[in-house]
Amino acid sequence: MRYRVVLGVLGSILWLLAGFMIIPLIVALYYGEALHIFVIPLICAIVIAYLLTLFFKREDEEWNLKEGFLIVASTWLIAALLYSLPYILEGVPPINALFESMSGVTATGATALPDIEGHSKSLLFWRSLIQWLGGMGIIMLFVAILPKLGIGGRQMFRAEVPGVQEERLRPRIRETAKILWLVYIVLSFAEFIILMIAGLSPYDSITHTFTSISCSGFSPYANSIAAFDNPLVEGILVVFMFLGGANFALHYKTIFNDRKSLIRDQEFKFYLFIIVSATLVLVYELFRNEVYSIADAFRYSIFQVVSILTTTGYASVDFNLWPDSPKFILFLLMFIGGCAGSTSGGVKVVRLLLLLKYTQNVLHKTIHPKAVIPIRFNNKTVPEEVIHSIVSFLVIYILIFAVSSTLLSMMGMDFITTLSASIATLGNVGPGLGLVGPMASFASIPDPGKLILIANMWIGRLEVFTVIVLLTPTFWKN
Amino acid sequence: MRYRVVLGVLGSILWLLAGFMIIPLIVALYYGEALHIFVIPLICAIVIAYLLTLFFKREDEEWNLKEGFLIVASTWLIAALLYSLPYILEGVPPINALFESMSGVTATGATALPDIEGHSKSLLFWRSLIQWLGGMGIIMLFVAILPKLGIGGRQMFRAEVPGVQEERLRPRIRETAKILWLVYIVLSFAEFIILMIAGLSPYDSITHTFTSISCSGFSPYANSIAAFDNPLVEGILVVFMFLGGANFALHYKTIFNDRKSLIRDQEFKFYLFIIVSATLVLVYELFRNEVYSIADAFRYSIFQVVSILTTTGYASVDFNLWPDSPKFILFLLMFIGGCAGSTSGGVKVVRLLLLLKYTQNVLHKTIHPKAVIPIRFNNKTVPEEVIHSIVSFLVIYILIFAVSSTLLSMMGMDFITTLSASIATLGNVGPGLGLVGPMASFASIPDPGKLILIANMWIGRLEVFTVIVLLTPTFWKN
Repeated sequence: MRYRVVLGVLGSILWLLAGFMIIPLIVALYYGEALHIFVIPLICAIVIAYLLTLFFKREDEEWNLKEGFLIVASTWLIAALLYSLPYILEGVPPINALFESMSGVTATGATALPDIEGHSKSLLFWRSLIQWLGGMGIIMLFVAILPKLGIGGRQMFRAEVPGVQEERLRPRIRETAKILWLVYIVLSFAEFIILMIAGLSPYDSITHTFTSISCSGFSPYANSIAAFDNPLVEGILVVFMFLGGANFALHYKTIFNDRKSLIRDQEFKFYLFIIVSATLVLVYELFRNEVYSIADAFRYSIFQVVSILTTTGYASVDFNLWPDSPKFILFLLMFIGGCAGSTSGGVKVVRLLLLLKYTQNVLHKTIHPKAVIPIRFNNKTVPEEVIHSIVSFLVIYILIFAVSSTLLSMMGMDFITTLSASIATLGNVGPGLGLVGPMASFASIPDPGKLILIANMWIGRLEVFTVIVLLTPTFWKN
Repeated sequence: MRYRVVLGVLGSILWLLAGFMIIPLIVALYYGEALHIFVIPLICAIVIAYLLTLFFKREDEEWNLKEGFLIVASTWLIAALLYSLPYILEGVPPINALFESMSGVTATGATALPDIEGHSKSLLFWRSLIQWLGGMGIIMLFVAILPKLGIGGRQMFRAEVPGVQEERLRPRIRETAKILWLVYIVLSFAEFIILMIAGLSPYDSITHTFTSISCSGFSPYANSIAAFDNPLVEGILVVFMFLGGANFALHYKTIFNDRKSLIRDQEFKFYLFIIVSATLVLVYELFRNEVYSIADAFRYSIFQVVSILTTTGYASVDFNLWPDSPKFILFLLMFIGGCAGSTSGGVKVVRLLLLLKYTQNVLHKTIHPKAVIPIRFNNKTVPEEVIHSIVSFLVIYILIFAVSSTLLSMMGMDFITTLSASIATLGNVGPGLGLVGPMASFASIPDPGKLILIANMWIGRLEVFTVIVLLTPTFWKN
């Protein structure tokens, strides 16, 4: 481990992280709001970035695998720390500020602000912008923008978005990162325009564009999307959350290469299948329990299913008030998440799909012990190592879920709050159920509990391995 | 699939199942209670067994793998159906009777009798005896008793107790089955004597011996072990539940070959570790929440941890009234279970242990991609197929848990009842939390819900595969 190299690269990244803070500064100027909440962190970041690059940066230096993991994991932690400063400067207690900031960069959308509307417009704008950046990935943007990253780039890319199958759109990782960011920007721009046409203010349009296409879920309104009570707006958001939860490499191919790329993809089909079947069950349950008419049941079901499955976490209604069975279905969806290569979090549809195929295979072998049938996905044989990585992902995921739930429970939280808060943060969903429902905030969780949930968001966003390897003794051995 | 062969073997097994019913008949005679509740089912069973053997049985016929699965899965279903008749004849509604009977044969211990003490002594004796038979395994007893089973015996043995590593105590499966049953009988006898010395009546001693060493958990008292309120009795039961939850092959080796067999076993060490750490956390939580004094916290914690982890399901106190955090820990223990080759249910400690080792391995490979390190357990390399079978076991287990929870939830049950009822039946634990707590009964669950839980117990007892392969289309293809 060459700490000099790590610190040097972190210096370069910090320049980029600092640079983003100029945007909310302009917004604050426009609204005539306090500037110091952005200026002070900006200056701090620039000073540290300058010192790091001055002392540690060398030209054209490549990092190895371990250093790459450390750089990526640190980047997200540093971003959360730096971006918590504006909240602190606007009077938010430090732990709550760090919670909000980590929830921002990891595109989770769980809030620890009890009075969202009490904050400045520029801070709330910034809160949404961070989610947009974090949704597609800070490192990926870094890889796309900065030249001369060499082979280290691909490692970092993979550490941030390990996914399951690496979509090699271009032989060079930098080109791939650029394309993905380009698709992201195009979709975001389209959504912004459509929301404007639908009648939202420019401010509402841009903040909700930022947090829907990125499957993150912050809203400048405490009542989230219920604040609009507008079926058209809900419909538009459903479409873009849905697109955000699908594979962006396939979006690119669909637009530029082959219209049927998305429809032919097995993961996409299964993603669609989950949405349709969960929505139908939810409509049935809400109608049967006389919560809504059929039309309203459909309206709220499709929105909530897409919002939770894509790990966005918007609420168009306080689903915490629903009967237990529809809540239970939303709870299960929190464990799945969207597609690989999307902006969503969670376990991801492809992992579930491959585990099912794998299990089918083992069942077949139970009856026909001598049969050798490879697992196929999108007409390709899935290598053994992919299954290994999915299984160990799942084991670690379940362990973290169990441990964080136990610890929360020991802090006096009830079962539903405990279980839903753990998975809502680990899966980067956002709101949970019980005390941390969609119209409530995580502020009521004791501070040690918030720290656990902050760790969950960090671990979940980097798909477990990148953070967890840092905790193994072998990582620190030479 | 040769149905003639299957029906012929089932005929032989039915003779055995019928034969057991002579024992409660003697008990009923002794207490001067109604005989017809046993006589009628006994006659039915004998008639059917006679017809089956007459028409289908051929001497010395061997069955293939598929037929073996069908025989084992059917045996347990037939046992549950036959043994539900005495309950029905004593006025229990048919679904409740089947629930009680399946809970009996699978050594689960979940009860659907709202008024346990209202039933005859002979029926309650029978209820405990079934658990003792089911705990070690009906098929295993069949294999041990009946001669000339040939190679089919090993297949059936494995279908009933797939375990993880097959303990080959003897080259012939029949000898192994005999030895395991012998150890079981010796331990049971020892427990019976010790409980008598501790002051329990012969009836209480024998019924509780039957349901503790078998990790099953039925008690003739609605208040379970709390009915005695006797720390000495609790201590004795803890020891025998603990022994029941450990590997019986290792018990044999410890007694006859090498005193250190048990202590050296990695699974046993981990089993011990889980018990000690869970007990300590529980003591801390119960004391901190001012539920008990330190001494009482220890007394109730160790009992409840061992009872739940070994999937016995006795209660020495109504833990449903505890705060949420100790209940949450018990809930987590329901997912683990005891050791392979024991009478306990659940996922089993060895599966958890091997998954952890496997994950550690994958994490190591993340940093050192070229490293090849085999997984070792008890100084032996674990074959790849074992890991495959554990992973698919876990996937199916989680899926069944999720589906049965969802269905229960759709029947109007709350989160805690839903989740705990599913795992308490699938893991063959017994009581859950909420509406199905240790002092309550499953009678309040709607009948369709009970049928789901009956299926859970059946699937869980046969460690998933034996039942689930029957649901695959390939099983029925020639």
